Amino acid sequence: MARPIILGVVGDSATGKTTLTKGLVEILGSENVTHIGMDDYHCYDRQERKEHEITPLNPECNYMDIIGQHLTHLRNGEPILKPVYQHGDGTFGRPDYVKPQSFVLIEGLLGYHTPELSSNFDVRVYLAPPEELRREWKVKRDTSKRGYTEEQVLAELDMREPDSESFIRPQRSRADIVVAFQPGVKDDPDHLDAVLTLREGLPHPDLSSLEGGADAIEVEQHASERRIRIPGEIDKERGAAIEEAIWEQMHFARHLRTEQLGLFAIGTDEEHRSESLAITQVLILYHLVTAKATAAIGGDDVANGRDTASGVPSPA
Amino acid sequence: MARPIILGVVGDSATGKTTLTKGLVEILGSENVTHIGMDDYHCYDRQERKEHEITPLNPECNYMDIIGQHLTHLRNGEPILKPVYQHGDGTFGRPDYVKPQSFVLIEGLLGYHTPELSSNFDVRVYLAPPEELRREWKVKRDTSKRGYTEEQVLAELDMREPDSESFIRPQRSRADIVVAFQPGVKDDPDHLDAVLTLREGLPHPDLSSLEGGADAIEVEQHASERRIRIPGEIDKERGAAIEEAIWEQMHFARHLRTEQLGLFAIGTDEEHRSESLAITQVLILYHLVTAKATAAIGGDDVANGRDTASGVPSPA
Repeated sequence: MARPIILGVVGDSATGKTTLTKGLVEILGSENVTHIGMDDYHCYDRQERKEHEITPLNPECNYMDIIGQHLTHLRNGEPILKPVYQHGDGTFGRPDYVKPQSFVLIEGLLGYHTPELSSNFDVRVYLAPPEELRREWKVKRDTSKRGYTEEQVLAELDMREPDSESFIRPQRSRADIVVAFQPGVKDDPDHLDAVLTLREGLPHPDLSSLEGGADAIEVEQHASERRIRIPGEIDKERGAAIEEAIWEQMHFARHLRTEQLGLFAIGTDEEHRSESLAITQVLILYHLVTAKATAAIGGDDVANGRDTASGVPSPA
Repeated sequence: MARPIILGVVGDSATGKTTLTKGLVEILGSENVTHIGMDDYHCYDRQERKEHEITPLNPECNYMDIIGQHLTHLRNGEPILKPVYQHGDGTFGRPDYVKPQSFVLIEGLLGYHTPELSSNFDVRVYLAPPEELRREWKVKRDTSKRGYTEEQVLAELDMREPDSESFIRPQRSRADIVVAFQPGVKDDPDHLDAVLTLREGLPHPDLSSLEGGADAIEVEQHASERRIRIPGEIDKERGAAIEEAIWEQMHFARHLRTEQLGLFAIGTDEEHRSESLAITQVLILYHLVTAKATAAIGGDDVANGRDTASGVPSPA
């Protein structure tokens, strides 16, 4: 069996990590995905963090070396005994025996903290919504789902800001794909633009057929980065056409296609659907199935752009 | 720094694992020793074992693969996040971040379950007192320290017997040193004989000067095994002379010498001293410091008898 493919979804608190991965887990099939939250690797429980005056964003508040060790094991197809942090009461529970499935999705605050650590991932996504939007999301989530008041959440955000600056945001530079949802023409949560920065290293799909015309995807090249804007106001048909263009470039995985992408919730609201989210998810999926297919035919590191001369035909 | 030296102390429940290692930890200095109990790697808590009708002696009741993984990390000088099994209430606690010190002492039921697993140890001790004596020890310990009745302990022993036979005793053949304390001339706990079986593979110290005469150590060679009987009735002076003869063969470690060896407790009794225990401990210590010295000068596997041609002078 081909080795597990490791996806990193890294970003500050409430940047949409879980929303982004949820659709991916559903499309890949939960039985094929090992889904790990890096919060499990905190070294201090909630009470101790208070006493030590340390935030979870600080690498010293996390067993960074153990995370690296476990990532290496998972990548090699080996099981781990994963610690368990319980968000409910902020304490640690009984560890969990975890075997890597075909895909391993790791979401967390500090996945790309060092070059060594980030080299464990096949596909590195970093979530970078504008701070204003993130604060809004965090208030909505933590007041509706985690029982805090708005004042508490805002105070916590201010308290964490120096660590966000020191430890979280610098990781952006190590991502293959930076995803920034942001208010677009229609200023509502269902119609956010998705601005994707695609870095060299991963072979990205060809989107040239999607440029131009109304509701067009805008593509700009900045040195070694390609920046793509998926307008939030495109309608369902146009969204489906764009998704279709990407699916065509991963024809060996067409059987995975469903309507499950693009769904999200705000607080405890019912589910919404966003075309730009769905397209972002398809793009990430493209990289996951490409990496998997490449590993399956022995070109292990093609997905990381480290062995482009191996003769494996590139779908892009 | 030389890599950690790993000692295994394996044997059935109540064979004296903790008693044997306690003196070693004290002489090496607790700050130099990482002491790990393999019971921490149970996969089922007490309640679940009851439901599954499985004993802790069964490999399927333990994360054997994770034990191997962690041993490899420790041997490489890397930290582990160790699970914690709480004997008090039979549940799992918060994991423990453990860095290997100079010496790693692992005691447990199943350390030599497979050849791969046992190859992680530099020195492999197996404890094999006569079953009758072990039953007596288990009753004394579990009624005094773990709150069981004698009937409960005896029933538990009978229930575990098939697993002891299937999984525990076969490991004896993988040990470098088999230690069997047993009743000698004076039939009391302070004067047990120690019968040591020394296997080829480890270079054992020269004990020929101690043979013959009154209170003599008896040495017999059986094919590739040397069997040594340390009489339980020898007095403190004779015991000290024997210890001295072994210490002379590890002169680079003479600074470790103390009076801490040979101490043991029965149930909640005060501490006793046994000369044969002290001598057994010095013999094991000999192997630990020899392995350490060898690793320190680059002859990594001399201690395992796998590289005797490396030119490192053998103290024996």
